[in-house]
Amino acid sequence: MAGIHASESIHPFIPKDLILPDYVPILLSQSTILTVYGCASLLVVSFIWILAGRFPKISKLDKLLMCWWVFTGLTHMILEGYFVFTPEFYKQKNPTYLAEVWKEYSKGDSRYVGRDSAVVAVEGITAVLEGPACILAAYAIATRKSYSHLLQIAIALGQLYGTAVYFVTSYLDGDNFAVSPFYYNAYYIFANSFWVWIPSLIVIRSWKTICAAVSTQEQKKRKTR
Amino acid sequence: MAGIHASESIHPFIPKDLILPDYVPILLSQSTILTVYGCASLLVVSFIWILAGRFPKISKLDKLLMCWWVFTGLTHMILEGYFVFTPEFYKQKNPTYLAEVWKEYSKGDSRYVGRDSAVVAVEGITAVLEGPACILAAYAIATRKSYSHLLQIAIALGQLYGTAVYFVTSYLDGDNFAVSPFYYNAYYIFANSFWVWIPSLIVIRSWKTICAAVSTQEQKKRKTR
Repeated sequence: MAGIHASESIHPFIPKDLILPDYVPILLSQSTILTVYGCASLLVVSFIWILAGRFPKISKLDKLLMCWWVFTGLTHMILEGYFVFTPEFYKQKNPTYLAEVWKEYSKGDSRYVGRDSAVVAVEGITAVLEGPACILAAYAIATRKSYSHLLQIAIALGQLYGTAVYFVTSYLDGDNFAVSPFYYNAYYIFANSFWVWIPSLIVIRSWKTICAAVSTQEQKKRKTR
Repeated sequence: MAGIHASESIHPFIPKDLILPDYVPILLSQSTILTVYGCASLLVVSFIWILAGRFPKISKLDKLLMCWWVFTGLTHMILEGYFVFTPEFYKQKNPTYLAEVWKEYSKGDSRYVGRDSAVVAVEGITAVLEGPACILAAYAIATRKSYSHLLQIAIALGQLYGTAVYFVTSYLDGDNFAVSPFYYNAYYIFANSFWVWIPSLIVIRSWKTICAAVSTQEQKKRKTR
């Protein structure tokens, strides 16, 4: 539709006619970017696993959930928070690691580098509201708060809602934002799938736990009458 | 940016350069549209209020909540469902009442008639998932299901998330979609505000109820050990 611009070849993203003035190419390799994210995550998870073990009566599943909540909370706040509050990340002359992450991820979904409003809105809600709430959820599990399961459901449903908006808007806009089927499947589908099946499992588990607690309490109420 | 088109004057919406081929002007007056919606809603609410009274031990607040859930559920499924699945509503030669509603509402937010992806995605999730869930919530309150409060929280949080995406995307896209300040305030702000403060109150109330039930049950658990 739009005429072919001279500027089109300066970035690797799809659609080709996406205009990104002053785009600075990716410097880090895919393996470096993924290794740093992987190692940092492993470090966080190991630390939380050890820390969680110091709280009394924590099951292995709860320790695992604490690791997940801190991992996803830090991902929301640091990675996604950086994206939300750094609109010009792709122009940085000496790009930070976080800028490189989002340029790399944009190969799977150029709406990031193109700053699509739906993506920024969902990431904003995720980074600002859900990120801190995830850390609170880990704390609530460790200290056995009465709102622990409820908070986990609330955040997990928020993650599912955000992912739904993310996928549906892409579908409505033509689903043509990936450089190749490899990046489409690896970044857009596979990486995001963790924020579909893990929150789903958490909702199911915590939903059952709360319903059981509520119905037990109501039965006792009736008995004591 | 885009040159002024001959077609621009054929619709009343803002921005003026929004292109709506074959747009059919609104036939019904604002008062007719609002009166029909108001009367239909009053009829539904009255019917649910009477029906709710036939269930045993239902408090006035629960009756009121049942009315709200059925009202909002039918609004989601009928009004918003129509919008989602009728992309060409503004072209209808003999427009239905529902087409008129969305042409009228678009005076406050032209992203509806312009079929903005974020709006369609949020409305799709609301109509397809939340609409039926609202009716289930009313049923759960009437029959005192153990999941009643949990379901109310889940839907109310979904409504709040959807409204947040709705407002944030508009802000990011320049917040210039209303014909005049009157329509901006009456439709975009005032009408939507009900889906902010009512869900907020519901979340607070049901959250407290569940936390109380969970902590009572845990105290009893400890005593019986």
